[in-house]
Amino acid sequence: MRKLCLFIATSLDGYIAKPNNDLSFLKLVEKEGEDYGYAEFTSSIDTIILGRKTYDYVLKEIGTSHYDNGDRDVYVITRTERPQQGRTIFYTGNIAALINRLKSEQGKNIYCDGGAELIDALLQQDLIDEMIISIIPVLVGDGTRLFKDGRPEQTLEFIEAKTFETGLTQLHYKRKKE
Amino acid sequence: MRKLCLFIATSLDGYIAKPNNDLSFLKLVEKEGEDYGYAEFTSSIDTIILGRKTYDYVLKEIGTSHYDNGDRDVYVITRTERPQQGRTIFYTGNIAALINRLKSEQGKNIYCDGGAELIDALLQQDLIDEMIISIIPVLVGDGTRLFKDGRPEQTLEFIEAKTFETGLTQLHYKRKKE
Repeated sequence: MRKLCLFIATSLDGYIAKPNNDLSFLKLVEKEGEDYGYAEFTSSIDTIILGRKTYDYVLKEIGTSHYDNGDRDVYVITRTERPQQGRTIFYTGNIAALINRLKSEQGKNIYCDGGAELIDALLQQDLIDEMIISIIPVLVGDGTRLFKDGRPEQTLEFIEAKTFETGLTQLHYKRKKE
Repeated sequence: MRKLCLFIATSLDGYIAKPNNDLSFLKLVEKEGEDYGYAEFTSSIDTIILGRKTYDYVLKEIGTSHYDNGDRDVYVITRTERPQQGRTIFYTGNIAALINRLKSEQGKNIYCDGGAELIDALLQQDLIDEMIISIIPVLVGDGTRLFKDGRPEQTLEFIEAKTFETGLTQLHYKRKKE
């Protein structure tokens, strides 16, 4: 069955962005020719789901091409109806229903690209199957947390840890089999 | 110079305890004969500093022997004056002054054993030199966070990551040289 996977970077103190969506700390680990497994990861997925605020942010900063490269479906989770654009669908329905439908269909894995609100909604309903979390060697001190307070407990199975010259450590977990 | 070191376990979502000081998730990684480097670490220190709430908790759960084994100084940071007990000193003064004095003296390293309030006070003043953080493979969902919001940014130097059969990953960082 298709899996819903998280692939995300966080500071050691657990923030995916500093206040005002400041992602400048990611520059600490930028290195020519090092993508930290991103290309390999994205070759394993054919569907992206992300929150509307994250979509708008990426649209403004990078452009639609970052998501909608023509060979994958993009679901933007939003409260506001909007017409489909190419393979980008603006989804206003129940998130669990969407994920369960996608998982029941044939295809590669599904990539949740954030943001924190959507990740929280998915964790609340225990819908995430694998997590690849890249820990940047910095305490940023404040901002948007990857994990919000008030979720159910979930035991994980550790798969592996990869370390990189830049000091980034990538931790890979999957849902613990019941 | 002596270093102030943190050696602490956290869930992947960044909690050192669940609500009501529930530490039961640490049992997930308990394994006969595996101390995750604790004995080796404590052989490198001769002084412990910890917060009063953590001290009271350990006193109730384990007893004084956990800290005051006779061959190390214990500083309990508190707002309430209390007479010294053996080598356990109840310290009501300025924390930075204490740490700077201890660091200027001869001796082994200094171990901060928590809790979250003291760690936050130390991070606010950039007094921690090394951090050894053991990540337990679980999302506990809520509780006491290792890192509170609202600290200054601090870039770290990654030293190493150790993985263990139980799924625990131990990340080791030191203060970045300026």
